[in-house]
Amino acid sequence: MVPSRKEAVLRSFGADTRMPTLAVVLDLIRDRGAVSRVELADATGLTQATMTHAVRKLMALGLVHEVGTLPTTRGTPRRLLGLRPDACHMVGVQFDLYSAVGVVVDLAGNLVAERSLPAPGERDPDTVVAEFAEHVGGMLDDAGLTAAQVLGIGLATYGPQDREAGVLIVPMPTPEWAGYPLAETLAAATGLPVIVENDATAAGVGVQTLGGSASSFAVVFMSGGIGSGVILDGRPYRGVTSNGLELGHISVDALGPECHCGNRGCLDGYAGPGAVVASALADPELSRRLGLGADLLTDFLAIGRATVAGDPAAAALVAASAQRLAVATVTLVNLFDVGRVVLAGNAFADVGPVYRDAIQEVLDRSVFMRDVHTVQAELAGDVSRAAAVGGAAVVLRNLLESPYAERRTAAAK
Amino acid sequence: MVPSRKEAVLRSFGADTRMPTLAVVLDLIRDRGAVSRVELADATGLTQATMTHAVRKLMALGLVHEVGTLPTTRGTPRRLLGLRPDACHMVGVQFDLYSAVGVVVDLAGNLVAERSLPAPGERDPDTVVAEFAEHVGGMLDDAGLTAAQVLGIGLATYGPQDREAGVLIVPMPTPEWAGYPLAETLAAATGLPVIVENDATAAGVGVQTLGGSASSFAVVFMSGGIGSGVILDGRPYRGVTSNGLELGHISVDALGPECHCGNRGCLDGYAGPGAVVASALADPELSRRLGLGADLLTDFLAIGRATVAGDPAAAALVAASAQRLAVATVTLVNLFDVGRVVLAGNAFADVGPVYRDAIQEVLDRSVFMRDVHTVQAELAGDVSRAAAVGGAAVVLRNLLESPYAERRTAAAK
Repeated sequence: MVPSRKEAVLRSFGADTRMPTLAVVLDLIRDRGAVSRVELADATGLTQATMTHAVRKLMALGLVHEVGTLPTTRGTPRRLLGLRPDACHMVGVQFDLYSAVGVVVDLAGNLVAERSLPAPGERDPDTVVAEFAEHVGGMLDDAGLTAAQVLGIGLATYGPQDREAGVLIVPMPTPEWAGYPLAETLAAATGLPVIVENDATAAGVGVQTLGGSASSFAVVFMSGGIGSGVILDGRPYRGVTSNGLELGHISVDALGPECHCGNRGCLDGYAGPGAVVASALADPELSRRLGLGADLLTDFLAIGRATVAGDPAAAALVAASAQRLAVATVTLVNLFDVGRVVLAGNAFADVGPVYRDAIQEVLDRSVFMRDVHTVQAELAGDVSRAAAVGGAAVVLRNLLESPYAERRTAAAK
Repeated sequence: MVPSRKEAVLRSFGADTRMPTLAVVLDLIRDRGAVSRVELADATGLTQATMTHAVRKLMALGLVHEVGTLPTTRGTPRRLLGLRPDACHMVGVQFDLYSAVGVVVDLAGNLVAERSLPAPGERDPDTVVAEFAEHVGGMLDDAGLTAAQVLGIGLATYGPQDREAGVLIVPMPTPEWAGYPLAETLAAATGLPVIVENDATAAGVGVQTLGGSASSFAVVFMSGGIGSGVILDGRPYRGVTSNGLELGHISVDALGPECHCGNRGCLDGYAGPGAVVASALADPELSRRLGLGADLLTDFLAIGRATVAGDPAAAALVAASAQRLAVATVTLVNLFDVGRVVLAGNAFADVGPVYRDAIQEVLDRSVFMRDVHTVQAELAGDVSRAAAVGGAAVVLRNLLESPYAERRTAAAK
């Protein structure tokens, strides 16, 4: 029964090339728990006819069912719709050089399994992908799921990416990673469809999945490096190839040092964990006190914890980073015009509130449209898992929304 | 007959809350001249049924008619659709402190009248709006049009704006302008509906109207100051309140001087016409040679012409500005992921090619996703009128697309 439902979802991928509303409706049903068609139409601004069609499709796919009725003062009672949380499951893996997080979520966004995976470090992609495959299998075992009950795997990671081909375009961490058939190899090893997604964009989708109903916001994502994402009216901003929103690679000093990306004075080199750790390592006393010298992210997390614990030298480094990141966040807001900025990524574990407060202060006095609307900075509910959860959620969204290939074709015109 | 068509378009505004495709279909018919429904469906990726519905609606509004048939090798010949260019007209006025440009365009985007209007300078809004109204009337007389044949006026100008209310939120050029009922006053004086639009976004729509079929690109707009816009899949990026894309107010120097906008080290203060003119005025020899000392834009245009004519001191100032603008353009591209950047705005008259070449060089070596796709810099076909033409075109688009009020409500959720 479950496999055939999966088949139906997969088949629907090709059948109807324009289903932009299904994912939005599904998100609303998830967020509200039990909801009538009339409420759904009101909440989305869609017509009753469109909503009836969308709900029929979601019910045919087995994702949604009727969970009860709501008495009305007159006329027929309204039937209430709810998710079938176990209708399908998705796997999400977020990784960069310094960390890897895996999750399995159900349709309702509940975590049914999770693991810290070994970080890729500077190992070759064959080794890392084989390891990922093993841990995905392990997570499915943990959750008591077979591959047939899983729609696919979302790999959330850095760019540039060819999202359609499922490959990275960048020779990081080693030259073999550029153009390596990442999605294809993991799919062959697991027997599951695999998509590649930008980690910060995935974090945005994860915030929606975990956190509820805000439909427009930016994400500032910090793990080994800095990235960002924008969710507008419930959907990720993608540009023409999903390679935008590289906040870590905007120039904050036109005469600054050349970055590996080709730009000069990139934000990441001033505010990112790498910059903070480099400054800390240049201070032997601080370095010794915090026991630095592990990998970049481990060291950064130690500096973050020391900051929260009141170490003034650590706090000064974090404050400088936060100040730079705050100015870049103003750039992001002044360009994308959003009213909410959510911080996500495992670098914000522990030290997140320090960054949030610094960013809020700068937003309040510097944002261009602050007389039109406020801009609120906040932390994601689960900073370390948001991107992995979003990677999982994107697997289902991709199937429910317009195929990416079609968008790309339209954009190239 | 024409007035009733206008009435029909205006009525359709409220009737169907989701008509995102009508404007796209209309643009395609305009660009292709004569086109069949099948071609339109292919080009947009819309279903045949959706296209048939959209075309029926455009025909009912009197905007489109059948212009002939295309023989096919078998079956019935395909009927070809074309615009009715004189079905309706729109007025566009682009202004900032230093210049004002007015145009009247027909449905096909042809200019049927145009004027240079007196620049607002530092005069009060009552005076300026009365003057605008007089010139709009004059342009309609020039074109032999009555108000009944005109859908409305699009005012393209700087922000922050409350686009829905049709007012500026900024006390520029004088305190009376902040919150002044700009749209309402001009509407009362002309008897025409008036909308307010961001100038750079209008320039993007104008580039589409004047230039053809590119569906995704960024605009770098320079008039009295620097702004930008993004058109994605044929539609302007708006964020939550249409107050984004303020490229002139992103920080390029976190320790730089405080800007009137609240930010520090804004691009406009380093690369904008104001910065270039200030540097030129600090050089008495150059200042005398070019006869500077008029208003900001006039002086900047003189520096631009001198640059093109080979004056080395003028060229050095323009090169410094272009270098800064190029770095900011990389920021724009790295965040929005577009493959084309179009320069528009009257500051690019004469000196446009110098900026274009400088920006292209920096894009080629610095853009984050350059291994995924190229990024092309180019000049708008009509740099000085693009924003005014776009202001006019937005009047029709606004009527054909989802009402702004609804978008705003959805975004605030």
